[in-house]
Amino acid sequence: MTQLLASINSPDDLRRLSRSQLHPLADELRRFVIDSVSSTGGHLSSNLGTVELTVALHYVFNTPQDRLVWDVGHQTYPHKILTGRRDGMKTLRQLGGISGFPRREESEYDTFGTAHSSTSISAALGMALASKIKGEDRRSVAIIGDGAMTAGMAFEALNNAGIADGRLLVVLNDNDMSISPPVGALNRYLAQLMSGQFYSAAKNVGKQVLKGAPPLFELAKRLEEHAKGMVVPATLFEKFGFNYIGPIDGHDLDSLIPTLENIRSLLDSDSGPQFLHVVTKKGQGYKLAEADPVAYHGPGKFDPAVGLVKPANKPKTTFTQVFGQWLCDMAAADPKLVGITPAMREGSGMVEFERRFPGRYFDVGIAEQHAVTFAAGLACEGLKPVVAIYSTFLQRGYDQLIHDVALQKLPMVFALDRAGLVGADGATHAGAYDIAFVRCIPNMSMACPADEAECRQLLSTAHAQNHPVTVRYPRGAGVGTEVPTSLDGLPFGKGEVRLEGQGVAILAFGSLLYPALEVGESLGATVANMRWAKPLDLELLRTLAASHQALVTVEEGCTMGGAGSAVLEALQAEGLTLPVLVLGLPDEFIEHGDPAKLLAMVGLDAKGIDAAVRARFAGLITPAPERAAAA
Amino acid sequence: MTQLLASINSPDDLRRLSRSQLHPLADELRRFVIDSVSSTGGHLSSNLGTVELTVALHYVFNTPQDRLVWDVGHQTYPHKILTGRRDGMKTLRQLGGISGFPRREESEYDTFGTAHSSTSISAALGMALASKIKGEDRRSVAIIGDGAMTAGMAFEALNNAGIADGRLLVVLNDNDMSISPPVGALNRYLAQLMSGQFYSAAKNVGKQVLKGAPPLFELAKRLEEHAKGMVVPATLFEKFGFNYIGPIDGHDLDSLIPTLENIRSLLDSDSGPQFLHVVTKKGQGYKLAEADPVAYHGPGKFDPAVGLVKPANKPKTTFTQVFGQWLCDMAAADPKLVGITPAMREGSGMVEFERRFPGRYFDVGIAEQHAVTFAAGLACEGLKPVVAIYSTFLQRGYDQLIHDVALQKLPMVFALDRAGLVGADGATHAGAYDIAFVRCIPNMSMACPADEAECRQLLSTAHAQNHPVTVRYPRGAGVGTEVPTSLDGLPFGKGEVRLEGQGVAILAFGSLLYPALEVGESLGATVANMRWAKPLDLELLRTLAASHQALVTVEEGCTMGGAGSAVLEALQAEGLTLPVLVLGLPDEFIEHGDPAKLLAMVGLDAKGIDAAVRARFAGLITPAPERAAAA
Repeated sequence: MTQLLASINSPDDLRRLSRSQLHPLADELRRFVIDSVSSTGGHLSSNLGTVELTVALHYVFNTPQDRLVWDVGHQTYPHKILTGRRDGMKTLRQLGGISGFPRREESEYDTFGTAHSSTSISAALGMALASKIKGEDRRSVAIIGDGAMTAGMAFEALNNAGIADGRLLVVLNDNDMSISPPVGALNRYLAQLMSGQFYSAAKNVGKQVLKGAPPLFELAKRLEEHAKGMVVPATLFEKFGFNYIGPIDGHDLDSLIPTLENIRSLLDSDSGPQFLHVVTKKGQGYKLAEADPVAYHGPGKFDPAVGLVKPANKPKTTFTQVFGQWLCDMAAADPKLVGITPAMREGSGMVEFERRFPGRYFDVGIAEQHAVTFAAGLACEGLKPVVAIYSTFLQRGYDQLIHDVALQKLPMVFALDRAGLVGADGATHAGAYDIAFVRCIPNMSMACPADEAECRQLLSTAHAQNHPVTVRYPRGAGVGTEVPTSLDGLPFGKGEVRLEGQGVAILAFGSLLYPALEVGESLGATVANMRWAKPLDLELLRTLAASHQALVTVEEGCTMGGAGSAVLEALQAEGLTLPVLVLGLPDEFIEHGDPAKLLAMVGLDAKGIDAAVRARFAGLITPAPERAAAA
Repeated sequence: MTQLLASINSPDDLRRLSRSQLHPLADELRRFVIDSVSSTGGHLSSNLGTVELTVALHYVFNTPQDRLVWDVGHQTYPHKILTGRRDGMKTLRQLGGISGFPRREESEYDTFGTAHSSTSISAALGMALASKIKGEDRRSVAIIGDGAMTAGMAFEALNNAGIADGRLLVVLNDNDMSISPPVGALNRYLAQLMSGQFYSAAKNVGKQVLKGAPPLFELAKRLEEHAKGMVVPATLFEKFGFNYIGPIDGHDLDSLIPTLENIRSLLDSDSGPQFLHVVTKKGQGYKLAEADPVAYHGPGKFDPAVGLVKPANKPKTTFTQVFGQWLCDMAAADPKLVGITPAMREGSGMVEFERRFPGRYFDVGIAEQHAVTFAAGLACEGLKPVVAIYSTFLQRGYDQLIHDVALQKLPMVFALDRAGLVGADGATHAGAYDIAFVRCIPNMSMACPADEAECRQLLSTAHAQNHPVTVRYPRGAGVGTEVPTSLDGLPFGKGEVRLEGQGVAILAFGSLLYPALEVGESLGATVANMRWAKPLDLELLRTLAASHQALVTVEEGCTMGGAGSAVLEALQAEGLTLPVLVLGLPDEFIEHGDPAKLLAMVGLDAKGIDAAVRARFAGLITPAPERAAAA
């Protein structure tokens, strides 16, 4: 069944096929994607939607000489399979295996590393203008989804590209669905556009009818030209200076290939930036995914014949679920609470909140900048916004956090999911820098709950403050502490000693408290649950510094400028100069892979922490056997 | 001449005037703005452009119950004058005086603090939806310029607002000029729109002519409805769901007031979001500013009767000029160099570069996100991008810096102007956090030149690396070192000892080296010019730590996570525990005011550094008199 696909080791092989062979190839490719993803886990729906588009792009364009830039990039499995990585697919998203996103290091066909949305037009425009400056003969193509198109960055790029004279094609892959259903005016507009074919029809009918009756015909023609031309171009994308083509069926190779060939000619004749509107269906060709593309967006392993099945054992409660439940409970208690998400309803655990409190739920689209400032506007009027945003995506709203939130000291909660390492998604999604980049902002606070119970409690604490507070919590489940039902908080800015020991005190920030406790038990060290990266619990720090010979800080975040640094700063400010071992994420980007393995790799599991403390403070520790002997 | 204005102490007073009194009031207000700005310095052109619009908005809307959100906010002097701050204008932008931007703390009429562009629609939408949730009867108005409209954030907000049902009015203040002339497709489109009145005329003529000839008339009507309606609405803003009105003359009160009254009715009848396109002229009513709005954008003090005059003495060379000269020289030497600015050609010193190298100059509009990733795309193709961006505006491209630049380790230079305190513009423009937020990113480097000569040299060093490097330098002039003409760099990641002393070593990062040298002379301390916040010169640090009893770090950046923290981290990593005094900007937002006064206020002038070192390390210093006596 995979005779054709087996012969494709590069797009050159693909381009040697006849047009008629492309249909069966696409079928094989789709089958391969389903088999592959069902055995490794990964993104499915989006990749089933891009099978034909990928075949057509590599068939028509001269890759890698021509540049394809895939926006977000989780729809690039067909691209990876056709560009020499068919066998690599069985290592997808595993430690040492191929990435779930394009990566320049991985292949010359991956021209730009993506994963955060809406960067492709900017990058492809850069490539197009670079080839012009260098006098190189190539075309650059950005492939971007309708969800990604709502981000401001895409508009900035369109605005710039529309007047630039590079050989640039933007392919809008319109499937009417990002992870959450897309929202906003643009999407409504795209839907109108797709229903607009009858407009072309009507226009032609009009011409026929009018032809018999000049000079009225002339007037009508002028009206029509006007309507199409300078003042009211046919589409929004033409207003931005692009030549708009479409919409066409993105699963129909017989539409795609001739259209792309025509566009290639337009590019080669320097006819300005081109815009192709392609309509695809997420999950295309796999009935279960077509029926529920959200469920099949990023499934784990499954049997393709059966589809996803509910796990027999109730899975552990995730931090995301703890947040979602807290949000509902707090919203019931406080009518001023409003919830904001930049297009991550499912990922951030807000499905139930939307259902119960639709009037206080705001999905603003993939628009982190707007999300933060919009929420600031809500806060100005006395509402209590909770902005749910992944740690890595808060990077997109950083200026707004500083300028619109912190500077005005607005009471707001930022629920930062996916703080720390995230596993299979890799470096692009890791929430590694938030402690450093939030801590340096005046008026900001940051809580680091150690477990599920604290996550709820610290969210309540954050909500009760009259200034902005971030709460960072990791991906997935924690140790499984029972989550209280009350909305009581914990004291603001206060940590606690969890284990009394001597010599060395380990100061844990966040969920690494639990491996730290293991180490503390093993080494006879004190362990403190610091809970707050900002403000630091100075009283606790002073007590620990006074009663120990050395400190160890532990956090799942970058050591450069992180919570450990905050401890160093505070000690020096107090005039205390005891030795401190700072443990956290090293100053490098951490690959994708199993989260536990990754933590072990960077020395942040119990074994690694234990070894690091022994290596640095050998003389200060009293391991358990010796303590037992002494007792 | 200012009889009317003198009687206006709040918009209530304004609203008691008759319509006929508004014209003379506007004239008085314009005169007051000219007199006021010419005596204090500040923004002029933009404020002359908003005189009538401000009068009309406060006249028609019930401020402060209705919310006005001014985008950027440097055009709000007329607003400040009409809202009780007429007398305060003489303290504008001075320490303890009123801000050059709206500030919530300053007045209840300043509903949202602005200064960075393109936040107003987001904030006003938040306010509009909050009032809906709370059942409060108010309207929210965002006033945004055409330059600010190019930023993606504005589009994110339009996309969201267009389908929301708040009482929101967006006023586009179209003056065809931000600080640099605006660029991009949107601006071209707005120009077309303004030339589009004849379209309306033609349409009406069409109707007249066709009326005589049904059923062709019917068809034409249907075509026209189509052209205006579902598939091809009249304007881009209507595609986003707004009711578009305009363009109207923004200096004509007799157009503005009835139009705004009509819009107020539309808002009150919940007719959806409204969009008013107003055309104004920067510098309106002051011939010199009309003729050269760029020069009068942000002038110092001047005689209104004479206008700006060239200073008699040649002013000191600024860091901006050093950058601009280096950019031209390096571009002449390296054909791969390309320069990118997000709409700050003048501010970043790129006028000459554009003139000499137009094909390698890219002004991408107010679009920091796009600027960074577009430049990354250029770098992917082997060009050497230099992105000139104020420190504070890099916050807008932070995710792109991490995700698109650092992660891919692309060779690029970021020239960060306005690092540290900026004086009159205040906290919103301060480049206080860049060391902290750049340093935590893997693969990134940061140079901190101490003076003009080093600025040029370190830019050359940065350009020579095969990875991304940021170079941060302050606003204005430095100590006035002679700038070399060569393109030789300094060693990457290496500092130097500038003054040999004993006991205490002062480690200076950046231009505070010079006050540190004064302190070193006075205290007999060693002074090192560290030059690089990342990577730290570990060898130099080890030497200094080994030969001194204490260290002092000095930087014009936040102490939380800054270069001082980097020193603390490095010392602990080396197992060195000597006392360190970390001096830098405190963990609070610093007001506007004279830069020297501000530095003194936060203890970062020579006197303050001296006092801090004496207070902390009294026993370790040998002041000059004692050294002289001992010699």
